[in-house]
Amino acid sequence: MEHENKLIVPGFRAAAVEAAIKKPGRLDLAVIVADQPVAAAGVLTTNKVKAAPVLLCQQRLRAGKAQAILVNSGNANACTGEAGLEAASAACRAVTELLGCPEQLILPASTGVIGQPLPVDRILDVLPSLTASLHPGGLPQVAEAIMTTDTFPKTSLVHTDIDGVRVTVAGLAKGAGMIHPDMATMLVFLLTDAAVSPKALKAAVKQGLTGSFNRITVDGDTSTNDCVLALASGAAGHRPIENLHSPAGEILAASLHTVMADLAVQVVRDGEGAAHVFQVVVEGAASPADALKAARTVALSPLVKTAVAGEDANWGRIMAALGRARVKLNPNRVNIFFGPQQVVKAGLGLGPAAEETARQVMAAGRFDLRIHLNLGTASDSYLTCDLTADYVRINADYRS
Amino acid sequence: MEHENKLIVPGFRAAAVEAAIKKPGRLDLAVIVADQPVAAAGVLTTNKVKAAPVLLCQQRLRAGKAQAILVNSGNANACTGEAGLEAASAACRAVTELLGCPEQLILPASTGVIGQPLPVDRILDVLPSLTASLHPGGLPQVAEAIMTTDTFPKTSLVHTDIDGVRVTVAGLAKGAGMIHPDMATMLVFLLTDAAVSPKALKAAVKQGLTGSFNRITVDGDTSTNDCVLALASGAAGHRPIENLHSPAGEILAASLHTVMADLAVQVVRDGEGAAHVFQVVVEGAASPADALKAARTVALSPLVKTAVAGEDANWGRIMAALGRARVKLNPNRVNIFFGPQQVVKAGLGLGPAAEETARQVMAAGRFDLRIHLNLGTASDSYLTCDLTADYVRINADYRS
Repeated sequence: MEHENKLIVPGFRAAAVEAAIKKPGRLDLAVIVADQPVAAAGVLTTNKVKAAPVLLCQQRLRAGKAQAILVNSGNANACTGEAGLEAASAACRAVTELLGCPEQLILPASTGVIGQPLPVDRILDVLPSLTASLHPGGLPQVAEAIMTTDTFPKTSLVHTDIDGVRVTVAGLAKGAGMIHPDMATMLVFLLTDAAVSPKALKAAVKQGLTGSFNRITVDGDTSTNDCVLALASGAAGHRPIENLHSPAGEILAASLHTVMADLAVQVVRDGEGAAHVFQVVVEGAASPADALKAARTVALSPLVKTAVAGEDANWGRIMAALGRARVKLNPNRVNIFFGPQQVVKAGLGLGPAAEETARQVMAAGRFDLRIHLNLGTASDSYLTCDLTADYVRINADYRS
Repeated sequence: MEHENKLIVPGFRAAAVEAAIKKPGRLDLAVIVADQPVAAAGVLTTNKVKAAPVLLCQQRLRAGKAQAILVNSGNANACTGEAGLEAASAACRAVTELLGCPEQLILPASTGVIGQPLPVDRILDVLPSLTASLHPGGLPQVAEAIMTTDTFPKTSLVHTDIDGVRVTVAGLAKGAGMIHPDMATMLVFLLTDAAVSPKALKAAVKQGLTGSFNRITVDGDTSTNDCVLALASGAAGHRPIENLHSPAGEILAASLHTVMADLAVQVVRDGEGAAHVFQVVVEGAASPADALKAARTVALSPLVKTAVAGEDANWGRIMAALGRARVKLNPNRVNIFFGPQQVVKAGLGLGPAAEETARQVMAAGRFDLRIHLNLGTASDSYLTCDLTADYVRINADYRS
């Protein structure tokens, strides 16, 4: 496949296998290995119930160095107590022995059902064949191996130039069930051959989150296993970036942001049962905090999301959501647009013809829902998807 | 019907008619009238987008007196601007002329679609026949006339004794689509023949909310039209209650609470698409605020609600919800029970046999989900229902 040929980041090899953690016939264990210890950074879940691999990453990322990511799907290794920590450690130690690097440099990640013991024996059985099959073109298989209810693997790749040298930034993501990580696990792995200090790498990742995963999610509304891990091999060979606010630092940050934003859109597009993807854009808010709160409240409203599922330009539900968003609001100033079609002007509906055009905008499957509060100059947006009967079916049947 | 004979409150008459606001064949306009001006109190939506009838009630309730409630379903008269206020006023004025009481004593209420003009002409056409058919046994028809997506009318009645006199307290409710008023409109009308000052009546209503509608909803998460209106005719003839903390005041407050709690359970039971009703009980929390937040977060979690729809004792989702509830939490101390069956002990699952028994508990359709945090002595609870594919269907099709 052309795609498979392209998703290569100098300095990294990867592979995936079946370890019988998920149903037979599906890849469920993968490893990404750097040729040597490299700069590492991560942003981990703020959920107070943290999975064993998250607890290990938390500790190991302090050094800012790592050499491998070991990830499984089909089991979250969360709420598994001491035994879960030992299982994750045992798996990492086995990788250590096969690759000859310290255990502290292995970052574990898991996704899947909570509260089941990690079948570590099955993992240990297949690890030798997994590490034996490591190759530079293995990343697409990793993207496949981390899928749970995802319907397609999520990858992204950009090339850029730093100091006249070609630099690669790639990303893999596992969609979060529905699109808010409070509802499922989201894993994101970012790889680059840029040369960058761990501190600058972490700053770039955090900055990229604001315009990507933090606008499809909510600070703090995280799952037990969420993590964004970034490794930078330095294989591109340019002068190492120490400061994100240098020209080279800004180029790297922009590339990471592009990859993260691309993955974020893919995650929403693959929201469980999603038939419509829409961006709630709030403009004219009294403050930036109000803009975000208003966008988020509308984007989270089950009544708005079900109306979109039914392609009904039911703007009354949008007004009601704005009214409880705890933001400064004058209902008589609100304008609402579905794509280019205005349906509410100064708080009043523009009638059936406008709503019929709005319905056609929705029917395209992807649209902007634009709300102008006419109170100030702040704006923000939030990407979301509709709430369909399929979402309920998927989540009612997930374990059975 | 026996029920119809019983739902009578001395001092009040009621009636309902078809005004062709909803589809033909359904009652959609009703009036409740006191024999004379009586003590009135109300709690109205805190949503910043307030329907026209709510704005009128807000102003009229200040006097603490009212003589009638005029309510329609099929149209919320919200986001209708000045025209909406005039329409609500015109309807009230017509009642005024028919009954011979000042317009300020008529409390209007509406529920239904937002943003459509109230068909006030149709209301004016049928008002004479509506007021002509007022009778003491008309309350069950009012309960029917305020239904929108409700599948059954919600009424409640208790009798008590105050100063040796028999006192009646009755309530009618219109369920809030799904069970959180941020998602639809909830109307509650409370009627009693007790003699009570408007101030004490309001205090009793507010007190009753804490253990009823405020535990199936969230302060501030309200719709454009939500209201709880209470009228007290005094027809029972006992010495008027001025102070809620008198023996008579406490009896009245308890009776109002009983009626409100009964109606709250009915509203949840009739949640859109609901197949399972469950009470999330949080015990051992570090503070009362934590207990409420934890119960509310679990009760609102779409992943928990869909798991209950699938009768899956997926306690990992409960742990994940607790972890993001922003409460003091030690995962290793959490115990979780479905009815009498414990499924989590000290943060760890008790295995498939326990989960199978929990599944059977859920299959009964009504159960307690009890969570012990083992951190303190505070407790609280939250009544909710599952999230089913039917909920989505109902809300995707609501207007079309």
